[in-house]
Amino acid sequence: MAEKRPYILVTNDDGIGIKGLRLLIESAKKFGDVLVVAPDSAQSAKSHSITQALPIRINKITENDNYAEYSVSGTPVDCVKLALYEISPGRKPDLVLAGINHGSNTSASVLYSGTMAAAIEGAMHDIKSVGFSVDNHSIEADFEDAVPYVEKIIAELIEKDLPEGVCLNVNFPDVTEVKIKGIKTVKAANGVWGEKFVKANDPHKRNFVWITGTLTNKEEGKPDNDIYLVEHGYATVTPIKLEFNYLPFLNELSEWDFNIS
Amino acid sequence: MAEKRPYILVTNDDGIGIKGLRLLIESAKKFGDVLVVAPDSAQSAKSHSITQALPIRINKITENDNYAEYSVSGTPVDCVKLALYEISPGRKPDLVLAGINHGSNTSASVLYSGTMAAAIEGAMHDIKSVGFSVDNHSIEADFEDAVPYVEKIIAELIEKDLPEGVCLNVNFPDVTEVKIKGIKTVKAANGVWGEKFVKANDPHKRNFVWITGTLTNKEEGKPDNDIYLVEHGYATVTPIKLEFNYLPFLNELSEWDFNIS
Repeated sequence: MAEKRPYILVTNDDGIGIKGLRLLIESAKKFGDVLVVAPDSAQSAKSHSITQALPIRINKITENDNYAEYSVSGTPVDCVKLALYEISPGRKPDLVLAGINHGSNTSASVLYSGTMAAAIEGAMHDIKSVGFSVDNHSIEADFEDAVPYVEKIIAELIEKDLPEGVCLNVNFPDVTEVKIKGIKTVKAANGVWGEKFVKANDPHKRNFVWITGTLTNKEEGKPDNDIYLVEHGYATVTPIKLEFNYLPFLNELSEWDFNIS
Repeated sequence: MAEKRPYILVTNDDGIGIKGLRLLIESAKKFGDVLVVAPDSAQSAKSHSITQALPIRINKITENDNYAEYSVSGTPVDCVKLALYEISPGRKPDLVLAGINHGSNTSASVLYSGTMAAAIEGAMHDIKSVGFSVDNHSIEADFEDAVPYVEKIIAELIEKDLPEGVCLNVNFPDVTEVKIKGIKTVKAANGVWGEKFVKANDPHKRNFVWITGTLTNKEEGKPDNDIYLVEHGYATVTPIKLEFNYLPFLNELSEWDFNIS
């Protein structure tokens, strides 16, 4: 008896037409039936936001037995929710693949990334999920050299199991500049994004500011984290699980006095 | 020698003019000098998103020695970053207070909430931070009955220390309908938001969908979690820490084979 083909949801945050997504779709097709639901415009840094105050438009691009593709006027998390609850409610994906993101998502970047939010949303729905990112922000960049690793990771993910709520965060060095030295399973760096705001005027002489930032590695110099390894030419795989609790502090906090009267 | 007055940053995701924020500002003023930086429009469900693709406008509303108020055309996390890096870079806040949010932020709602994202952003910058929410979504609702608890929590937070990266998530029952029975320190429920998409047509007969959802408590019936307690008339305090790692799985994952060739 033939095994059922995996059903694979592919999305990203850079948008439906972007090269990184197109590469990931081609890889996904080698492993199973593919549903693409991706934003119709750039949704970088949209984190886990959902489109609540506005309606969402769904545009069917292609649909046949083994492949369907939709663009939507929403965020990456909207895309995952639409796929699960509206576009394909009768067939739950076996995998959620997000990316390949133009720009790395190491360390604290996970929290801002729309691509990683899509993977986390998949994991919250008990689907094996992974986000792929390359340390090059140009939407013109060609990430072909990352593909053999992407496909090896998909193959492993199909074979093996992740713990409840856990997804994978995969980061590649800038493959347009360096040859990947290898791939390592490693923890995320303890990092924080600090910002600079660039001031300017619009044509009507009104002031505005534009956000720019730098990710600081609080573990600077230590080699066992994703920021360090990506900077040094390695691909990294990091397990992620977002929890809404910090249980180690619960007992101590319960001794604080919050009672009025 | 007089102690230095605490410097308190206040923000929200419902917007600068909303009643819940106005209550929180009045409470904050009793404890220290206050800087308000809040979105100029509703930013619910914006999670940790930042405004990267567009410029941000900053509108100074009031500024004197003990009180300043700004609205910005961005998200709650933009507000915190603007306060720290642009509006008041010379004086780091001692506290970040977010809310009072119109709508509860128990369990998995933390991940979608702009209000809780602001508190988490504060904690990432080593500032004692707390988000306050009431289980009533109406922006007309009056949360006056929550104020004595809000002020008690602020007082405790000024006196005591939180572990690195930890902030507090405070939820109240619908204080417009019920009298608060008490306040409990408790873990967040293990919950997940499932969605329904409402279909409609615009005046041009084009289809759209609108997201609606329901938070399901996977621990239904158990009393030791925030969803249960808020539903039963209690205020809850939950410690939150977002991490970008799931270390318990790191060793097992390192035995997967990601090598190519």
